[in-house]
Amino acid sequence: MNGGRETVAVLGLGVMGSVLAGALLEGGHDVTVWNRTPGRDAALVERGARRAGDALDAVRAAPVVVVCLYDHASVHETLDPLAEQLRGRVVVNLTTTTPNEARDLAAWAAEHGVRYLDGAIMATPPMIGTPGAAILYSGDEGVFGEVRGLLDVWATSTFEGTDPGRASLLDLAMLSGMYTMFAAFLHGAAMVGADGVSAGDYARRAAPFLAAMTEMFALDAEVIDSGDYSDPVQSLDWSDLGHLVRASEEQGVDPAPIAMVEQLRRRQVDAGHGAQGFARIYEGLRRR
Amino acid sequence: MNGGRETVAVLGLGVMGSVLAGALLEGGHDVTVWNRTPGRDAALVERGARRAGDALDAVRAAPVVVVCLYDHASVHETLDPLAEQLRGRVVVNLTTTTPNEARDLAAWAAEHGVRYLDGAIMATPPMIGTPGAAILYSGDEGVFGEVRGLLDVWATSTFEGTDPGRASLLDLAMLSGMYTMFAAFLHGAAMVGADGVSAGDYARRAAPFLAAMTEMFALDAEVIDSGDYSDPVQSLDWSDLGHLVRASEEQGVDPAPIAMVEQLRRRQVDAGHGAQGFARIYEGLRRR
Ligand SMILES: NC(=O)c1ccc[n+]([C@@H]2O[C@H](COP(=O)([O-])OP(=O)(O)OC[C@H]3O[C@@H](n4cnc5c(N)ncnc54)[C@H](OP(=O)(O)O)[C@@H]3O)[C@@H](O)[C@H]2O)c1
Ligand SMILES: NC(=O)c1ccc[n+]([C@@H]2O[C@H](COP(=O)([O-])OP(=O)(O)OC[C@H]3O[C@@H](n4cnc5c(N)ncnc54)[C@H](OP(=O)(O)O)[C@@H]3O)[C@@H](O)[C@H]2O)c1
Repeated sequence: MNGGRETVAVLGLGVMGSVLAGALLEGGHDVTVWNRTPGRDAALVERGARRAGDALDAVRAAPVVVVCLYDHASVHETLDPLAEQLRGRVVVNLTTTTPNEARDLAAWAAEHGVRYLDGAIMATPPMIGTPGAAILYSGDEGVFGEVRGLLDVWATSTFEGTDPGRASLLDLAMLSGMYTMFAAFLHGAAMVGADGVSAGDYARRAAPFLAAMTEMFALDAEVIDSGDYSDPVQSLDWSDLGHLVRASEEQGVDPAPIAMVEQLRRRQVDAGHGAQGFARIYEGLRRR
Repeated sequence: MNGGRETVAVLGLGVMGSVLAGALLEGGHDVTVWNRTPGRDAALVERGARRAGDALDAVRAAPVVVVCLYDHASVHETLDPLAEQLRGRVVVNLTTTTPNEARDLAAWAAEHGVRYLDGAIMATPPMIGTPGAAILYSGDEGVFGEVRGLLDVWATSTFEGTDPGRASLLDLAMLSGMYTMFAAFLHGAAMVGADGVSAGDYARRAAPFLAAMTEMFALDAEVIDSGDYSDPVQSLDWSDLGHLVRASEEQGVDPAPIAMVEQLRRRQVDAGHGAQGFARIYEGLRRR
């Protein structure tokens, strides 16, 4: 399975599943498609996909089965009846699940002799097949190596470890970070918007600034991994964020995002860690 | 004042003021320095700065006075007694203040015939003089044009408007965003850290991902500036972040950052805006 034409089944033709199937067709592979509700496969069939009558029919001829359904429950609902048919085949599950749900599916697969790879898509459907797309994988490393040629038509593929929950965990952590950053952007836009600055104007400044500041993560990470949080230059005592909370209130804007950070800082100060650096908040989040 | 050798006074030789004065010396200017507590000017004097006996002495010979003190109160404490001496001179104030404090200083300056420019430093001291540094200015646009040659030795200089509070407002909004993003990073690192992933490992993934995602700000901004938040594809109803909160809790990690976002989302849903997009949170932050 090295760059050749492969036979792949895709189960689930939602927004994402359809794009994944389309990219496989584009990559020159034999693609059989199935969706619970009929009628969502017309465009793919026109592009050369084979329409399966049911899920069993879809997986019968395919050594590799790609699953992109709604959630963990829908994956079980779809795959459980196919367990015997899937024995010896590869299942690449790109449905978003929690780490524990991915581990459960891997255990189910092992029990039925199914070779399981869990994937977490760090991209929106239009990004699939573009350089910005990344998909994280974990689980069976042998499977990852074998099907790599297929995976790479979608995104930059990285193998994150043999714990099948690892890809999902990294995904959820980064998604949490993304939504929190989006809320931070909306909060700043609201602060300056109160004085008549357009959101577009603010986005043009905030985007490059925050992008540049992501370089600071590595410095905090060094501190965390060393376990030595002492910081004589910019301690938690020193970096009171109260003025940011007040500035937000002066603008008539709910300070929730920055108030959350100030609360985490204060909790560390109150616990006696005021002489340590900002990264100390990491420990505060872990031990509660 | 176009690229020539200028005579500048720098009031305040803390960590930042010292670096600003040093960069002016580097740029070939005549620099007179003063600090409340004596003894912090030794290195600068060695590099060619003139030591002033007191603040009055410092400003006497300088048409341009750069101020970098602790806060708004310390600026008044230092400049109030010099009001008569400052008449006709330029004051560039780089001390961090709130927008209202900057407006107050501009009003004070106008009252005393002082030409005032307010600056907000978007950089740490080691970044001064490097391409990554930015300083925002607002207030007297004529002054900005005149002293531009001096300002550009420190950072990329941008004029943000004649409201003297504008630079500070943009600065505080972006700093709020930065700290919130840092908290988001520490939260994600704690989530994966619970499964043994090092913070350094996580930083290497999260930094480029979040940097790339700042490109989405422009899309939210377009929605906000249009005032039309309807979003049939990815509505607030649809983008429940509860699974991210639960995943954090499953890892034994305080979900505070993502729980804050989920609360902002839910508030909009409860207010009947569930069919609108994520950017609707902007309105929720402004009207409380
Ligand atoms: N869209 C994105 O931006 C994005 C990004 C990253 C990851 N993902 C993940 O990719 C997965 C699919 O997302 P999507 O955007 O394609 O969602 P979607 O458009 O809502 O599609 C959901 C798919 O799941 C199927 N399904 C739901 N319940 C089912 C069940 N009980 N049995 C069988 N099939 C069932 C649906 O079939 P019917 O047509 O019969 O309802 C449909 O094919 C999700 O886990 C999502 O989190 C999406
Ligand atoms: N450091 C940064 O990363 C950074 C970044 C952006 C903006 N800024 C802003 O730059 C300003 C200076 O910061 P810094 O890092 O240089 O702080 P710093 O090292 O703490 O220095 C504070 C300076 O203010 C002086 N000062 C304090 N109270 C005074 C008073 N009542 N009268 C006269 N002088 C007084 C101090 O003089 P003494 O020596 O006599 O105490 C010292 O020169 C602050 O507004 C800060 O927010 C700093």
